[in-house]
Amino acid sequence: MRTYRLLAACPDRVGIVAKVSNFLATYNGWISEASHHSDNQSGWFFMRYEIRADSLPFDLESFRQAFAPIGREFGMQWQIGDSAQKKRVVLMASRESHCLADLLHRWHSDELDCEISCVIANHDVLRSMVEWHGIPFHHVPVDPADKAPAFAEVSRLVAEHQADVIVLARYMQILPPQLCREFAHRVINIHHSFLPSFIGAKPYHQASLRGVKLIGATSHYVTEELDAGPIIEQDVVRVSHRDSIEEMVRLGRDVEKMVLARGLRYHLEDRVLVHDNKTVVFD
Amino acid sequence: MRTYRLLAACPDRVGIVAKVSNFLATYNGWISEASHHSDNQSGWFFMRYEIRADSLPFDLESFRQAFAPIGREFGMQWQIGDSAQKKRVVLMASRESHCLADLLHRWHSDELDCEISCVIANHDVLRSMVEWHGIPFHHVPVDPADKAPAFAEVSRLVAEHQADVIVLARYMQILPPQLCREFAHRVINIHHSFLPSFIGAKPYHQASLRGVKLIGATSHYVTEELDAGPIIEQDVVRVSHRDSIEEMVRLGRDVEKMVLARGLRYHLEDRVLVHDNKTVVFD
Amino acid sequence: MRTYRLLAACPDRVGIVAKVSNFLATYNGWISEASHHSDNQSGWFFMRYEIRADSLPFDLESFRQAFAPIGREFGMQWQIGDSAQKKRVVLMASRESHCLADLLHRWHSDELDCEISCVIANHDVLRSMVEWHGIPFHHVPVDPADKAPAFAEVSRLVAEHQADVIVLARYMQILPPQLCREFAHRVINIHHSFLPSFIGAKPYHQASLRGVKLIGATSHYVTEELDAGPIIEQDVVRVSHRDSIEEMVRLGRDVEKMVLARGLRYHLEDRVLVHDNKTVVFD
Amino acid sequence: MRTYRLLAACPDRVGIVAKVSNFLATYNGWISEASHHSDNQSGWFFMRYEIRADSLPFDLESFRQAFAPIGREFGMQWQIGDSAQKKRVVLMASRESHCLADLLHRWHSDELDCEISCVIANHDVLRSMVEWHGIPFHHVPVDPADKAPAFAEVSRLVAEHQADVIVLARYMQILPPQLCREFAHRVINIHHSFLPSFIGAKPYHQASLRGVKLIGATSHYVTEELDAGPIIEQDVVRVSHRDSIEEMVRLGRDVEKMVLARGLRYHLEDRVLVHDNKTVVFD
Repeated sequence: MRTYRLLAACPDRVGIVAKVSNFLATYNGWISEASHHSDNQSGWFFMRYEIRADSLPFDLESFRQAFAPIGREFGMQWQIGDSAQKKRVVLMASRESHCLADLLHRWHSDELDCEISCVIANHDVLRSMVEWHGIPFHHVPVDPADKAPAFAEVSRLVAEHQADVIVLARYMQILPPQLCREFAHRVINIHHSFLPSFIGAKPYHQASLRGVKLIGATSHYVTEELDAGPIIEQDVVRVSHRDSIEEMVRLGRDVEKMVLARGLRYHLEDRVLVHDNKTVVFD
Repeated sequence: MRTYRLLAACPDRVGIVAKVSNFLATYNGWISEASHHSDNQSGWFFMRYEIRADSLPFDLESFRQAFAPIGREFGMQWQIGDSAQKKRVVLMASRESHCLADLLHRWHSDELDCEISCVIANHDVLRSMVEWHGIPFHHVPVDPADKAPAFAEVSRLVAEHQADVIVLARYMQILPPQLCREFAHRVINIHHSFLPSFIGAKPYHQASLRGVKLIGATSHYVTEELDAGPIIEQDVVRVSHRDSIEEMVRLGRDVEKMVLARGLRYHLEDRVLVHDNKTVVFD
Repeated sequence: MRTYRLLAACPDRVGIVAKVSNFLATYNGWISEASHHSDNQSGWFFMRYEIRADSLPFDLESFRQAFAPIGREFGMQWQIGDSAQKKRVVLMASRESHCLADLLHRWHSDELDCEISCVIANHDVLRSMVEWHGIPFHHVPVDPADKAPAFAEVSRLVAEHQADVIVLARYMQILPPQLCREFAHRVINIHHSFLPSFIGAKPYHQASLRGVKLIGATSHYVTEELDAGPIIEQDVVRVSHRDSIEEMVRLGRDVEKMVLARGLRYHLEDRVLVHDNKTVVFD
Repeated sequence: MRTYRLLAACPDRVGIVAKVSNFLATYNGWISEASHHSDNQSGWFFMRYEIRADSLPFDLESFRQAFAPIGREFGMQWQIGDSAQKKRVVLMASRESHCLADLLHRWHSDELDCEISCVIANHDVLRSMVEWHGIPFHHVPVDPADKAPAFAEVSRLVAEHQADVIVLARYMQILPPQLCREFAHRVINIHHSFLPSFIGAKPYHQASLRGVKLIGATSHYVTEELDAGPIIEQDVVRVSHRDSIEEMVRLGRDVEKMVLARGLRYHLEDRVLVHDNKTVVFD
């Protein structure tokens, strides 16, 4: 069922739900899903409505025009999306296949509602897997001595493919600040630890050294500060003294896959709002 | 913060949220929490609003009168409650203390927002623990050959204490149908299995015999059919071949405590709606 | 590191560990992993040793001859395996790809230590995915009116490929008793419920109808009685009233994949002993 | 069933299991539980045996004398304990009751196999709860300007009560280095975060600020470096944007209780070995 998805955030006060739902009822809009959150600490209000597209007399542009006065009245940050307009995803990978293969299979079996425009990788090992899915594969090697040309090419490809969202599926390279800013809250990374534990390199080695009893993974929006962006989703798995670092890496892969896939799904379905470097996820 | 809690369920159609939120906005009602659910299978709509009591010009009775026409218009099953009116809870127990002690401690440390009117037990072993909390303890032994007098006494006590809700904290006796009907959706039981597995007696023995790798517990509303009422909450814990039945019983106790406490908490906060023998829990 | 894996089960008594470990020490066997379990209910003892192959002066056949008297002395059921002899796996599938794709990817990325001899499917939709991995795909349609010819062909293929283990990766057909007996404790099935709940068809529909708050999956050895064989592994995922049956199916797929992959891994590494229709899993 | 519990750790080599199990078999020792771990990184071997006391011709002192040569031969760190000698536990608390009440109830219902010698608290609010259990309560206020007298009194009480283990059940004070050293690997603390995340004060506030999706708790042995000692047990619970800091505190309490109780249980049953600031927990 095709829906419009309205996301809005504004300082909390009386009458927001009434105003918005009244607006929708006026046009006979059928709300199929409604979520609200009042954040007591910040005093902000967050909402997400899914409305059956065929119940409204609007296209998106008309909706925007009709809704704009309400947005202004409440000082809202808002957006409206159409479930029929699939987001264009650029996947970035390196050598490790588990996250990439997982996302590709979910897409292939119609579980992820998006287009996968292309895969960009700094190594050429996953080309065959990607191309079997009928998706273009771009090998853009990164020269450690001068990364600028590679990222210029990445930016060019991202622009050429008109990416709506970039997913770092264990890409293992740090994106340049300019790209982070341009795609703010639209680059999703999977970090292989339960952040904020074990920021940076080799988190499983750090975890083994500290002797933790659970290891985890975190999907988050990328910001200029490494591993410090808004967290979308996290999960953990139990480990013990029996698990060597290699076992942790193996167990961790399953958590990474799940956490990245859930994070991406939330993003694709417009379920994530960001405020004060934290997310509201209307799952 | 004192709130009114509005629960409503009705066949789904356009305009319900608008009508209700408009009603609230008309009276300057400040919605602190709003939850909605459209059930596609049944075609029903469920909602729960928490409204700051001090933002409304109403007491409960005036609210009911003002809201009644809306309820009729949409064919709603609805109720309004006041967070300041603590529900009166009667706890029923037998010999085992873990669920009872857990609930008493949560109440004692102000985690459960209710009054505990009394504890009724068919054995006299937990009296001292209960009375330390300043709560009346009634010992009502059940004669297996003739249970009627005991349950007459239970009914009398429940009435005398004006119970809003009865909690079977491992009571181990089956309530008579009459009491189940009178307190429909107001008697909460904890069953020590992951229902519908292992209905009836000795679920840990059944679990051990079947060799399951997880054991669980289920809190549910009691109906006349044994262990078949609407499920409020469930959880599980991992077991292995190393766990004897005694170990399962020990591990299971922690799950039972948690699942019963969460189920009761949802009920006390008016977060549970029942429809078609299933629950909607707005947690 | 190449290891020999010794599995043994016998009635418990004094001196078993001493006798076996002494035997190994006599030949300078380096134990890299040792697991023991005394089952108080049955009075049986279970053990599993991994011994570095290069520390022993034996090949498997010599080991068997040297160990046989000990096995007889204690009335042991025992076996010795060589980690270098990869088990030959026949995967069986139908239309749904998630379990199959998951196992294929784990094998492709060297996570599963086995050979995948072939895939047998009763529909022809997954051929391309399988063949991309370089694995033979056999389409054996099953005529509901006369299943015998199909299962004769399945038996022929299983024999031809010299299968050590058969994995039903959502095969959706019931194997004939003869094949179950021939491959006792060597056919692994994934059932899409938390057994013994929701035996048989459409478990997610049954789960939705009952209103459970967790759904699960179970990997088990196939026996002649449907969904009643020894359970190897189980897991669950939380659901709520928000999850339609379609959502349950989607969430369940991830549990099914994980539970089947873990179950198969345990089997491939000779970590599972079966006794009294229950498993001892030395994970 | 009364058992002797043998714990040993030494550099790994061939023949350890044989030597130890042979020693036991020589004296007709019945092993009821055996656990082994070879740590590939450190090259150390760890073992734990439970032996039925009535199967051995020894008391503990004779066992120690007979086993000593084996310990020397392998350079073992080893200890032997008697399950019948209950460990003496001193609990330390402050104002918050949840961990204390949980441990007291487990002890009261015979779930924790120990003596609770006394409770020491820096506030006087939990006296009645403790004394109801028939356990001495010592109020030792800590003067922030001069903590030395308080800790001198704590040390005196610990000595007087002949404590085997000290449990900081949300004590909220940092023990002096001298006491940490004297009771190395015998002081168990519960930290209300998933260490190493959120070391130090107010971890739930830190967690809320960072927007994590899971919060946790960690039981660990106390060392002189704050929150850096060997981790015994950890667990987590899911949170979301809906959970205020107060809700996190409430949800966290249940994890803290569980994680502390499990950690203490492992310690009481001699299941924990410490090596390189990490634990081997033979659960």
